[in-house]
Amino acid sequence: MRTGAAKSLLRASKPTITSLVGELVDLGLARESHAERSGAIGRPGLIVELDGREFAGIGIEVSTGHIKATALTPRGQVLIEKYSPLDVCHLDQSIVIDAVASLIKETTGELRRAGVRCVGAAVAAPGIVDPVDGIVENAPNIGWSHVPLIGALTERLGRSAPPLGLGNDARLAVIAEYLGFQNPDVHDLIYIIGGIGIGGGFISDGRLITGSSGLAGEIGHMPLDPGGAVCACGRRGCWETMVGLTALLRRAAACDDEVLDSTIDVKQRLDELVARADAGDRRTLAALDAVGADLGLGLSLLSDVMNPRAIVLGGYFTHVSRYVIDQVRAVMAARVITPRAGDCEVMVSTLGFDAVARGAACLAVDRIYQDPVGAAGRV
Amino acid sequence: MRTGAAKSLLRASKPTITSLVGELVDLGLARESHAERSGAIGRPGLIVELDGREFAGIGIEVSTGHIKATALTPRGQVLIEKYSPLDVCHLDQSIVIDAVASLIKETTGELRRAGVRCVGAAVAAPGIVDPVDGIVENAPNIGWSHVPLIGALTERLGRSAPPLGLGNDARLAVIAEYLGFQNPDVHDLIYIIGGIGIGGGFISDGRLITGSSGLAGEIGHMPLDPGGAVCACGRRGCWETMVGLTALLRRAAACDDEVLDSTIDVKQRLDELVARADAGDRRTLAALDAVGADLGLGLSLLSDVMNPRAIVLGGYFTHVSRYVIDQVRAVMAARVITPRAGDCEVMVSTLGFDAVARGAACLAVDRIYQDPVGAAGRV
Repeated sequence: MRTGAAKSLLRASKPTITSLVGELVDLGLARESHAERSGAIGRPGLIVELDGREFAGIGIEVSTGHIKATALTPRGQVLIEKYSPLDVCHLDQSIVIDAVASLIKETTGELRRAGVRCVGAAVAAPGIVDPVDGIVENAPNIGWSHVPLIGALTERLGRSAPPLGLGNDARLAVIAEYLGFQNPDVHDLIYIIGGIGIGGGFISDGRLITGSSGLAGEIGHMPLDPGGAVCACGRRGCWETMVGLTALLRRAAACDDEVLDSTIDVKQRLDELVARADAGDRRTLAALDAVGADLGLGLSLLSDVMNPRAIVLGGYFTHVSRYVIDQVRAVMAARVITPRAGDCEVMVSTLGFDAVARGAACLAVDRIYQDPVGAAGRV
Repeated sequence: MRTGAAKSLLRASKPTITSLVGELVDLGLARESHAERSGAIGRPGLIVELDGREFAGIGIEVSTGHIKATALTPRGQVLIEKYSPLDVCHLDQSIVIDAVASLIKETTGELRRAGVRCVGAAVAAPGIVDPVDGIVENAPNIGWSHVPLIGALTERLGRSAPPLGLGNDARLAVIAEYLGFQNPDVHDLIYIIGGIGIGGGFISDGRLITGSSGLAGEIGHMPLDPGGAVCACGRRGCWETMVGLTALLRRAAACDDEVLDSTIDVKQRLDELVARADAGDRRTLAALDAVGADLGLGLSLLSDVMNPRAIVLGGYFTHVSRYVIDQVRAVMAARVITPRAGDCEVMVSTLGFDAVARGAACLAVDRIYQDPVGAAGRV
């Protein structure tokens, strides 16, 4: 969120700043207060604080088994969270898009009733997206290919549509994780989201790595086992086939087991799995151990390639973290080539399943920084 | 080379700029000329050109089978190149360091006799380095571990030592490749150097990815085959064991074959290998084909992870490129998950074996940008 407006203010002359601040205060985006004197000579400086309590951006996560909305103020306060289990994998796309449109409508409605203006909404999809044209290009784990999502949403929302954005789930989540990170010295971060697919987002020296066409972070199909299982993508030995949610569940349970029933909410199934592990079920523990080892293998690769200060386990990994993290750390310690494993710390997301929608909301709210007057001026 | 001095000038006031330019001209780092009028109204602006023909930085490459020096001006002109075959792998470290010290002395001497001042020298090592303390931490392919190289060089060079720097070979080479890149629209680049080991350097959005401790780009030990060969590092299935120079030569020739004789210069051995391929030798062609396929496999992974616009094959790959590049491209097209393989182009380094020393010289010459007066002022 350290973008446009804030940065360009730094180079503006004093009268320009005064006029800009006045405009931001009028719009409710900033408020003035006075600095304490603390021994300095001269007139105390004017402190301008980010305000924007009257504004929010909406982030929408479309995942394999649910859709979720988060409304966030420019100061990072969560105003609304809505979660709907939805079998996105198997339902018709138009039904899913209807549901997303309804979720946006409901959330903007709630915000409006609370006196908060929606500056935009952004959707996070679990796959390859074209953010410029608003198209989900390829999301094999929900069976979407070349879906013009933003166009379809605009059609459904009509003239009441807020400005809409689109991004990849892990690339948006890593922004939320980085902005909320405890240790202020960490500026090189890998975020990995576990679901049926595996996605990644990289922060390097405080900046999101996008790659030349916004696709950096496609880590789910790293070819780690030439003799391995065939992936949903048709290739063999992809990392997803080793550490994706389906891989874990298939290792942990027979095919008629309820934990493999995708019509049941994924959180519920993970709770069941963890309950079995807690009870000492051998097959469950062995499955979690195997996933931990394979997770460590792939993360050792990413650690050597990117040399991050921290790796954050997100998505389903957060739910099973205490059964996999020791194995992850052990394999990484043995496998990373750099001394002391490059001083990289593996940790569990504190945002968990909330990171993606939160990251999408960050993207939506970012409009205020890119174009404060335009974003705040519209009703 | 778009660093400090040039950037901060942009924000300075006119009198400050005039005074700075005067100082740079006095130091021989810049020269003034006048713009053509081309129809503009008012006094023609003053054009300040980078000069610095009287200054150079020296880059030293320490590789498995040779050491090399390149002297480069701030405008990118190569003044001197020196290449000495040296069995760095098997010789005692102190003998190698003696040779490097001599190479620096000879090169600075030649520069001095040509009326060019040396602003610094930087050494590129094929492994993990600590640039702050000047230590080669771990370079298994030359058998170096925790070697305080810069200290040892300073001792040998005495008071005549230029300011010395240290970096990793691939991370320095990618800078030279990027600065010399033909296509001005490419700002996301992966450079891969093939030798006994495999190294990588990444440019993302025009910036070198360093990672949290300067180690990003350790791609040689990516675990791509759990059932594969044991690597020099002790791990199994590292990419180096599939596409490193030793892997190629062992695939191509019997163990008593001269191409495996490390006392013979590597370029000579590669010429022999290519001659055999040209003559249609089946074992050689099969070996090159297999290396091409495994190279494509690893590069597909890196392409998905980093989404580069271009991948540049450097080091020994440049010598055998016409026998591997088709296979690399075919495997990548089949394996990369992003549509149209993320529009990534695989190309052969135009600098070849010169990239590393050139990149190290860029680091040495960079002192002029970081501290023009300090760098140019010393004799």
